[in-house]
Amino acid sequence: MAEAQARRRSRGAGGGAARRAERTAVQVETARFIERNVPNYEVLTEEALETIEANAETVLAEIGVNFVENPGALQRWRDAGADVEGERVRIPRGLARELCATAPAQFTQVARNREKSVEIGGRNLVLAPVYGPPFVRGLSGGRRYATIEDFRNFVKLGQMSKWLHHSGGTICEPTDVPVNKRHFDMLHAHMILSDKPFMGAVTEPSRAQDAVDMCGLLFGNEFVQENTVLTSLININSPLTFDATMMGALEVYAANNQACIVSPFIVGGAMAPTTVAGTLTQVLAELMAGVAYAQLVRKGAPVIAGAFVTSIDMNSGAPTFGTPEAAHVTYGMGQLVRRLGVPYRSAGSFCGSKLPDAQAGMETANSLQTGLLAGVNFMLHSCGWLEGGLVASYEKFVLDSDQLGVLHHFARGVDMGDNGQAMDAIREVGPGGHYLGCAHTHANFKEAFWRSNVFDYKPFETWEEEGARDSQALAAARVDKLLADYQQPQIDPATAEALAAYVAERKAALPDAFS
Amino acid sequence: MAEAQARRRSRGAGGGAARRAERTAVQVETARFIERNVPNYEVLTEEALETIEANAETVLAEIGVNFVENPGALQRWRDAGADVEGERVRIPRGLARELCATAPAQFTQVARNREKSVEIGGRNLVLAPVYGPPFVRGLSGGRRYATIEDFRNFVKLGQMSKWLHHSGGTICEPTDVPVNKRHFDMLHAHMILSDKPFMGAVTEPSRAQDAVDMCGLLFGNEFVQENTVLTSLININSPLTFDATMMGALEVYAANNQACIVSPFIVGGAMAPTTVAGTLTQVLAELMAGVAYAQLVRKGAPVIAGAFVTSIDMNSGAPTFGTPEAAHVTYGMGQLVRRLGVPYRSAGSFCGSKLPDAQAGMETANSLQTGLLAGVNFMLHSCGWLEGGLVASYEKFVLDSDQLGVLHHFARGVDMGDNGQAMDAIREVGPGGHYLGCAHTHANFKEAFWRSNVFDYKPFETWEEEGARDSQALAAARVDKLLADYQQPQIDPATAEALAAYVAERKAALPDAFS
Repeated sequence: MAEAQARRRSRGAGGGAARRAERTAVQVETARFIERNVPNYEVLTEEALETIEANAETVLAEIGVNFVENPGALQRWRDAGADVEGERVRIPRGLARELCATAPAQFTQVARNREKSVEIGGRNLVLAPVYGPPFVRGLSGGRRYATIEDFRNFVKLGQMSKWLHHSGGTICEPTDVPVNKRHFDMLHAHMILSDKPFMGAVTEPSRAQDAVDMCGLLFGNEFVQENTVLTSLININSPLTFDATMMGALEVYAANNQACIVSPFIVGGAMAPTTVAGTLTQVLAELMAGVAYAQLVRKGAPVIAGAFVTSIDMNSGAPTFGTPEAAHVTYGMGQLVRRLGVPYRSAGSFCGSKLPDAQAGMETANSLQTGLLAGVNFMLHSCGWLEGGLVASYEKFVLDSDQLGVLHHFARGVDMGDNGQAMDAIREVGPGGHYLGCAHTHANFKEAFWRSNVFDYKPFETWEEEGARDSQALAAARVDKLLADYQQPQIDPATAEALAAYVAERKAALPDAFS
Repeated sequence: MAEAQARRRSRGAGGGAARRAERTAVQVETARFIERNVPNYEVLTEEALETIEANAETVLAEIGVNFVENPGALQRWRDAGADVEGERVRIPRGLARELCATAPAQFTQVARNREKSVEIGGRNLVLAPVYGPPFVRGLSGGRRYATIEDFRNFVKLGQMSKWLHHSGGTICEPTDVPVNKRHFDMLHAHMILSDKPFMGAVTEPSRAQDAVDMCGLLFGNEFVQENTVLTSLININSPLTFDATMMGALEVYAANNQACIVSPFIVGGAMAPTTVAGTLTQVLAELMAGVAYAQLVRKGAPVIAGAFVTSIDMNSGAPTFGTPEAAHVTYGMGQLVRRLGVPYRSAGSFCGSKLPDAQAGMETANSLQTGLLAGVNFMLHSCGWLEGGLVASYEKFVLDSDQLGVLHHFARGVDMGDNGQAMDAIREVGPGGHYLGCAHTHANFKEAFWRSNVFDYKPFETWEEEGARDSQALAAARVDKLLADYQQPQIDPATAEALAAYVAERKAALPDAFS
C-alpha cells in the first residue's frame, strides 16, 4: 500500500501541463498481487491429510520415481541417501520432506519495474496468463496457428490488464519462429513490451541458460545471482517420472537461484488414479521428489509445488475442466503443500469449450473460485485458456482477466470497522427509506462494489439498439481498444539495445530448427 | 441411498417384457437432495459475528421495523412485549432471537411422490428453479412475454432434470392468464406435470388459502394440517418493512403449518448500505423480525431465513451478479442464520447478462459455488435465471440444471477408504505407466468423474463438422430433446379429476383481472 501511495504522489507532483497530459492519457493501472484477508477452504480432515502423507512416503520408499537419462541426478540422489537401482530412485521415508525443508516458504520475484515485483508464497496470490497453446482464436478470424505477432499482442494485453501481476511465459507458441529460436523472441517481448515479471524457457537446458543470460543484460549479472527474476515451469512426466530435458532446465535455474514450478500435468484416470485421494497421494510424492531434487541442486533454491489436474470424460477420453473432482484435488493439494512449507501453484481459467461461451464461463469460474479459496499462491493460466489449453483466446483473455478483479475484491475480506458496520446509515435511512441518497452511500459508492469492464450492464433496450452483442463480441471490442491504447513501458535505451543485439546475434548463429 | 436401492430393485422386479420396455423407455432419474459431506466456508470471525448480532439487536430495539396496514400484526407484537408506535415495531433486545428459537432447525417438505420429499435444513441443500420472470427467451424465438404454455414447459424441464429436487413456484409469469387466476393454473401444473415438491401463491392471502385448499385435494386435508407440503416465498420490503399482502400470505401459511421463506430482495446501495457488514446487520434484523413473527402466528411453524442480495453498478444503477460483495454477504449470512438455528435460503443461477453467454456462465458459476460452500439449505433460482431475473431462459435452464450436478458431486467429499486411496493402482502402474488399463480404473471409471450432459467434449474436428455450435445452441437442442422425452408422472385419476374440477370452478367464479 505504501508503494501505491508513493506512486500516486509522484504522479501528482508534475506541473499543470503534466497534469493535463495525464488526464488525456490512458491510465494503465496494475493492482498489487493479492494478499488474502480471508480464510482458505479445507476439504480434507487432519486424519485424511496424515493418511495421504503416509501413503506418499510409501510411494517414494517402496515404488520410487524414475529420473530418466540423467546420471547426474542419480548420483545426487545416491549421495543424499536414496536407493538408486537403474533409473529408479527409492527415497527412504522422511528424506524427501526433510530435503524440502530448505526451500523457502516465500520468495520475491523481482520485476524490472520494482513496483510490480511479486511475493510468491504465504497468503499471497500472483496471477499469470495462459501458457503453451499452439493455436489462437479471435482478433481477426477464427482458430489458427499462433505467431510471434499474436504472442506480442498477448504480452501487450497482459501489460494493459489491471488484475494480472505477471507477464507469464509461452502465452502462445510462436509457430512461425524456428523451435530453437522462439525463446529469444518470447523473452525479448516480455522484457521490452511489459515491465511485469515473467518466465524462462524450459525446452532445453541451454535455452534456460539463455534466459538467465538475457536477464543478466536486463537486471545485471550480479543482481540475477542474488535475486530471483525468473519463475519457470518444470513439468513432471506423471506417473512418477522426471525426464532429462525438464530436469536439465531445472538444474540450470536452481543453480542460478531462479525459481521453478515443479508440477505434474495430470488427466485423471490416465496419468493418475481415478480417485481424488489416490491422485493426491501420487502428486504429493511427485512434488516431494521434485522439490527435494531442486534442493539437492542448490540448497535454498526457490521452488513452487504445482498441481495441474483435470478430470477425464470417460466417453470421449477428453480432459474436462471446472469439475468437482478437480476442485477436490485443488483444495486438498493446497492443504498438503502448505504442510510441506512451499508456495503452491494450481487452478486457472480452465475450460474444454471451443468458444468463449457459457460452458467456458462456467468451467472457468469454477476453477478460478476454487483457486482463490484453495490458497493458491501462483496461478498460471489465470486468463486466456480455451479448448483444453490448445487455444489462447483473445476474447477470453480479456473476459478472464476482468474476472480476476472478483478474486482481488473477495480476498479483501469484510470491513468490520465503523464505516463497514454502517450503523449511521441504517439509522439515517430507517424503515421504508432508501440508501441511494444517504451520506454513507455517497462516501462509499465509488469503491463499494466491484464492476466489470467488459460485461454488459445496460438496459435491455440500449443493449438491443447497440446490436444485441454477447460476451464474445463485447470482449472482441475490448481487445481492440486495449491494443489501441497500449503503452510501451519505458526502458533504458542502452539495455534495450544490448538485448536486441544479443537476440539478433544468437539467432543468426543458430541454424533454423522446426521440430 | 436405501430408497434409491429399493427403487432400482422394484424396477428390476418385472418380467422379461417389462425389462425390455424399460430398456427402450427414457430413464428419468432424480437425485436425492444434497447431503453435504464437506465443510462450510466461513468468511466472518467469531468477533465479527458477535458485532453484527449486537448491531442487529440495536436496529430492532432502537430503529425498529414497520408492519404496514396490518393491525393484527401490531397487536401480536404488542402482546409479545414489543414497543409499538404507529406502524413501527421496536423489539427489545433478545426478544426476536428468543421467539425464533421455536422455529424448527430442519423440516420435511413432502412431495406427492414420497421418494422426492426433501429435508430442508441441517447440512442439506435443496435446489429449486428460477422464480418470477415476466419474460422468457429461447425455444422458438427471442425474448417475449411468458405464457402458461411456457410455464408448463418449464415444469416439464424441471421434472426431467436429474439434479433439480423441487418444482419451484412462479417459474415464469403466465402473462396470458388473468392475474387473479394465474395461481390456479400454476399450482395445477406443478401438481399434475411434476411429482416433485412445489411452492404456493403469495400475491394475496386468499390465493395462499387456495394453495392450501388445492393441497388438501392432492394430499388430503388432514395430511396437510399435519405435514408441510408447501414452501412459499415471502419477501421483506427492505429496509425494515413488512407489507400487508406478503404478511397476509405468511399468516395463512404459518397458521396451516406450511413453510415460508422470509427473505429480503436487496440491491446493495439502494435497499441496504453499500457495505457488507451493514447489509448483514440490516438483513439479520429483518430476518429475525420475520421469523419471529411467523412464530407469533403459530409457534413451531417452519420458516426458512433467506438472503437475496445483489450488488449495484453505480454507473448505470443496474443490479450486478456473481460479484465478490454478494459472495461475502452469502457466506456471512450463512454463518449468522446457522447461529439463529433455522434453514438458510440464498444464492442461485444469478446473472445480469441478456443471453446465456460467457458473462452468464461466469456470474452464475460464481453464485452457485458460493451457495454450495456457504451452507445454503434451499436454493431458489438455481437454474434458468437470465437478465437480472427479468427472463426465464430455456437454454440457461438446462445449462444451469446440468451444472447443479457439479454441486452434488462436490458435496460428496473425498473418499478416504481403501478404494479411494488407490495404493494398489499406484503400485500396479508404477513410474512411466498409465492408468487407463489398470484394474482400479476399470472398477471405478463409470462413477469416478462428473460429466456434463450438455457441454461440448468432442474433438475439434467433430465439433466443427457438426456446425461449430456454442453452448446456447447445444442447450437449445437439449431443451427440445427433454421436452420430447418428457413423461408425465402417474397420478390417481380421481385426484386429477378433483383438481381439474376445482380449478375450472374457481376460475369461472372469478372475474378476470389483469393488474
